[in-house]
Amino acid sequence: MDWCSKFCSSSGHKINPPAGWKDHNFSADEPLMPWFGIDIGGTLVKLVYFEPTDERVNSVPEAETTRKIRHYLLSKTAYGDSGVRDVNLQLEDQKINGRTGTLHFIRFPTSSMPGFIALTKSKGLAPNSSTVCATGGGAHKYDSACQSLSLKFKKMDELHTLISGIQYILKQNSLEAFYYTDPLNNETCKSEFLTSRVDPPYLVVNVGSGVSILAVAEDHSFRRVSGTSLGGGTFHGLCCLLTGCETFEQALELASLGENNKVDKLVGDIYGGDYAPFNLKASTVASSFGNMIHPDKQKQTTKEDLASSALVSITYNIASLSFLCARIEKLKTILFVGNFFRINSISMRHIAHALAYWSENKVKALFMRHEGYFGAVGCLLNLTSADGSDNVEETNRDLPSKN
Amino acid sequence: MDWCSKFCSSSGHKINPPAGWKDHNFSADEPLMPWFGIDIGGTLVKLVYFEPTDERVNSVPEAETTRKIRHYLLSKTAYGDSGVRDVNLQLEDQKINGRTGTLHFIRFPTSSMPGFIALTKSKGLAPNSSTVCATGGGAHKYDSACQSLSLKFKKMDELHTLISGIQYILKQNSLEAFYYTDPLNNETCKSEFLTSRVDPPYLVVNVGSGVSILAVAEDHSFRRVSGTSLGGGTFHGLCCLLTGCETFEQALELASLGENNKVDKLVGDIYGGDYAPFNLKASTVASSFGNMIHPDKQKQTTKEDLASSALVSITYNIASLSFLCARIEKLKTILFVGNFFRINSISMRHIAHALAYWSENKVKALFMRHEGYFGAVGCLLNLTSADGSDNVEETNRDLPSKN
Repeated sequence: MDWCSKFCSSSGHKINPPAGWKDHNFSADEPLMPWFGIDIGGTLVKLVYFEPTDERVNSVPEAETTRKIRHYLLSKTAYGDSGVRDVNLQLEDQKINGRTGTLHFIRFPTSSMPGFIALTKSKGLAPNSSTVCATGGGAHKYDSACQSLSLKFKKMDELHTLISGIQYILKQNSLEAFYYTDPLNNETCKSEFLTSRVDPPYLVVNVGSGVSILAVAEDHSFRRVSGTSLGGGTFHGLCCLLTGCETFEQALELASLGENNKVDKLVGDIYGGDYAPFNLKASTVASSFGNMIHPDKQKQTTKEDLASSALVSITYNIASLSFLCARIEKLKTILFVGNFFRINSISMRHIAHALAYWSENKVKALFMRHEGYFGAVGCLLNLTSADGSDNVEETNRDLPSKN
Repeated sequence: MDWCSKFCSSSGHKINPPAGWKDHNFSADEPLMPWFGIDIGGTLVKLVYFEPTDERVNSVPEAETTRKIRHYLLSKTAYGDSGVRDVNLQLEDQKINGRTGTLHFIRFPTSSMPGFIALTKSKGLAPNSSTVCATGGGAHKYDSACQSLSLKFKKMDELHTLISGIQYILKQNSLEAFYYTDPLNNETCKSEFLTSRVDPPYLVVNVGSGVSILAVAEDHSFRRVSGTSLGGGTFHGLCCLLTGCETFEQALELASLGENNKVDKLVGDIYGGDYAPFNLKASTVASSFGNMIHPDKQKQTTKEDLASSALVSITYNIASLSFLCARIEKLKTILFVGNFFRINSISMRHIAHALAYWSENKVKALFMRHEGYFGAVGCLLNLTSADGSDNVEETNRDLPSKN
C-alpha cells in the first residue's frame, strides 16, 4: 500500500556481497593490518578483530603496532572494568579479503568509549594509515574523537552492515542459527542448531537498546519495515529504576527469579477464571504492571517479580510486532538478533512459544549465536569496499520526533 | 493468510442491530424498568442508566424500587469515595426499546464492586425480576454475587457489546467522533467533530487496562485481530511504582508536567545529532527509559519525567500496533476508544500525529466522546435481545499464557 512510505522504507536497499566476502584470493586492495570492525551502539560497543593465521603470517613481517595490538587483545579475555572477549564465539578459519584467520569478538559499554580512545592513544595502539570501519550511532558521535587517532575512520550504515554480517556468518558457519523445541517446558525444552541453510527472504528483528525490524528479500535487498522504542534499553532502564540493579546481567538474573503474574493483571484477575468464549486462559496477561495500581498488591511483590514483568512485557511486545510484520511481508522465517538476547533464554523461549502458538508452527523463530556482533562483522567485511557506507539517500522514517 | 488463525479470530463475529436499537415502537417484550447496562472492566466499572422521559412516564405507574433508584442516581453526581456521574456525557432523547429517555453515564473503580453490591442490597435497590445486562471480565467474576441480588443477571460478550454500543452512539449522535488538526502544535492544535457519518469498515482500538484491536467489516461483522498487554493499566501501574502516585488522574497530571526526553535514549544521545540517512531526527526516541541505565542521568530526572516517558512509550506502541493492523486489514479509519483516553489529550494528540505522519494523512485517527462507555451501552441495547450473549463459540486466542 502506498501510504506506508514514511513508516517503512520507501525503496529497497540493495546488499551486494561486500568485497571482503567474495574476494578469497590475494587482493591488490588488501587493507593494511590490523583489521577491525566496530559497532558503537546505544549501550554497547561491539568489536570484531581478525587475526590472520595463514602461511603468510610467517612470510610477511608484522608492523610493531599490529603486533602490540594482537598481543594486547589476545593475551587476555577481560579489558579494564567492563570489556570482555567472548571466547566461546571465536570463529576459526575465516576467509576474508584474501586472508585466512580467526575472528575475535569483544564488547564493552559505550559509556567507556572515551576511555577506550584515550587508552588507544596512550598505549600507541592506533597504527597510522590503517583503516577502521565503524557503524552504529557512536560512529557518528565519536567521529572527530576517532579521527584524532590519525587512523582512517570509515563510517558505514548500520543496517547495511547488520544485514551483510548476518549473511556472511550464516553462509560461513553451519552452527549459527538455532531454534527451540517445546520452549516453555522446563524439563523438555531444547535448543537445536538448524541444519538446513538459511536464505532470504526472512525478517530480521534487531533488538539492542531499541528495536529495528527489517524485511530481507530473496535478492538480498532489504527495507526497514518497523521498529519500536521498547527494547533492551527499556528492560534494563526500568529494572534500574524499579529494582536498583545496575547491569543488564543483574536485571536478567532478577527476572529469572521472579513471577510476573504478581505484578501483571491476568485474565483470571479480571474474569475470575478462564475467558472461555475467546479461549483466554486465566494465566494470560491482560495488563502488564496492571496490578500495581493496588497498594496491597504492590506490597506483595518483590523486585524479582517487577524485573520479570518488565522482561515478559517487552518480550511479548517484540514478538507481537514481529508477527504482524511477518504477516504484512508474507514471511515465515524471523531471525532475532541483537544483544538483548545475550544470556537471555527467557526472552528467546517466550518468543519461540508465542510465534509457534500464534502461527500454528508456520512461522519459525530463529536465534543466532553471534547475537549482537553482526554489524561489526559487516564493517570488517566492508574494509575494502565502498558498499553500504553512510551516503545512503533513501528516505526512511521511524517514530516521529516530539519536537 | 491461513496461519494467523490463533492470533486473530478464525471467523467473523456478526453484529445484528440489537433489539433495543431497531425497535423504536412499543414492544410486547419491553423489559421491566429500571434499565441498566454495566461493563465491569479490569479497572473501572462503567454503568449506563436509561431514564425514561416520554409521555408514558406519567401514564404508567413507577414501581417503588425503580423510583428509589432513579432518585438515588440522579440526585447527585458523585457516589461514595470514587463513583462519578459524567454529566457532560449525558445524552437526551435517546430512543431505545420503544421508549424515549436520557442516557446517564456513571463509573466507579472495579475494586469497589463488592461495596456496590452490598449497598444495592442494603438500600433495597435491586428490583425483583428486573434484568441487568453485564459485560466485561467482572460480569463473570461477580456473577454469583450479583445473582444473589435476586435480579436477572444476563452476561454479554464484551466485544459484541463494545461494537454494537459504538455503532448505536455513532448513528444516534452527530457530535461523537472527533479528530485533531495540527496535533503537536500547542498553539494551533484543534479538536473538531467529524461532520460526515462514520460507517464501517474501520479498525476499533479499545484501550482499557489492556488493549484489544478489532477490525469491523462493511457488513458489521468483526474480528479481534490483535492486542497487547501494554495498555492503560501499564501506564497507571508503572506510574504508581515510579512516582508514588495513586490515581490515573494523578499519573496523567504528572506526565503532562514532565519531559520524557530526559528518561529516554534519543537518536541524538546515540548519534550526537540527527541520523540523516534514515531521516531520524535527534529528538526521536530510540529507547524508552534507555537513559535510566546511567546513574547520573537517573539523578537528573523527576517523577514527572518518568510519568511522561511511561505515557509516551505506551502511546506510541499502541499507535504502532494499530497502524500495522490497519495495513494488514487495509483500513483507513481507526476509532480509538476506552477509558485510557479520558482527559488524556496527550495520548490522543500523539496518536493523531503519529498516524498522520506515518500514513501521510491517509489513515485517520478518530476519538470518541463516550470513550469507555460503549460496552455498557451495548449491554443496555441488548436487554431484550439474545444477540451477543456469552455463548460465543468461535476460537480466538490472545497472548499465549505462561503456564
